[in-house]
Amino acid sequence: MTVTYDSVGKGTELPPRTYRVTRLDLVKYAGASGDFNIIHWNERVARSVGLPNVIAHGMYTMAQAGRFVTEWAGGDPGAVADFGVRFSAMVPVPDDDAGAAVEFSGKVLEKLEGNRVTVDIVARADGTKVLTRARATVRLP
Amino acid sequence: MTVTYDSVGKGTELPPRTYRVTRLDLVKYAGASGDFNIIHWNERVARSVGLPNVIAHGMYTMAQAGRFVTEWAGGDPGAVADFGVRFSAMVPVPDDDAGAAVEFSGKVLEKLEGNRVTVDIVARADGTKVLTRARATVRLP
Repeated sequence: MTVTYDSVGKGTELPPRTYRVTRLDLVKYAGASGDFNIIHWNERVARSVGLPNVIAHGMYTMAQAGRFVTEWAGGDPGAVADFGVRFSAMVPVPDDDAGAAVEFSGKVLEKLEGNRVTVDIVARADGTKVLTRARATVRLP
Repeated sequence: MTVTYDSVGKGTELPPRTYRVTRLDLVKYAGASGDFNIIHWNERVARSVGLPNVIAHGMYTMAQAGRFVTEWAGGDPGAVADFGVRFSAMVPVPDDDAGAAVEFSGKVLEKLEGNRVTVDIVARADGTKVLTRARATVRLP
């Protein structure tokens, strides 16, 4: 079921979704992004520099937020016209198959012309907001 | 100093070289090769399945052997016409900056026509042969 511009209004909530991120995802993302910072794949070093665990690349979490909005808007990544976030907390990723859960929710802030809406996104890991001021402008069918 | 076809004979030894392989190399190789097998980057799982540590991708060690021959032959990877190895032991990679050392040595087995020679390569990690029957046919200047 795809939302349409006509079916949403200010305050319409996006159905929440949880995406997981595992150590394997981070190893793959390191290769794909070229960001091989050791805190994203080596727990010994991550803890030695004061981190709670290996942490996810911030851009990975941002990408998940983009996926959240894109899926809601019908699946076309090209529908996202504007997208910005502030990274407010880390996503620690435990060394197991389940990894970390990042919960996404959001609501429509404003309806714009041209079938576009502005969406406010909230991302939480373990109850903590990991993205703030996460906003996307997206074109709806 | 590049070797030349005229300057080598059967039994000529390649100057030995040691190449290191670190955990970071394996994370990068995973992304580059698409081989994300967990035994190449997760020590907990590697040990739980009976391995001595995270181990290097066999193809990574083979690639190092290829580099060894290529550098000896003047640097052109296209000079290697034939290349085969048998993987005889694992290369465990410790979780530190130094990683594992793989020592390469070799000698000319045979001179062929067309400025080509067949080279026998030995690769050792911690004194153990990790590649056997490692042979390359390479064209020399």
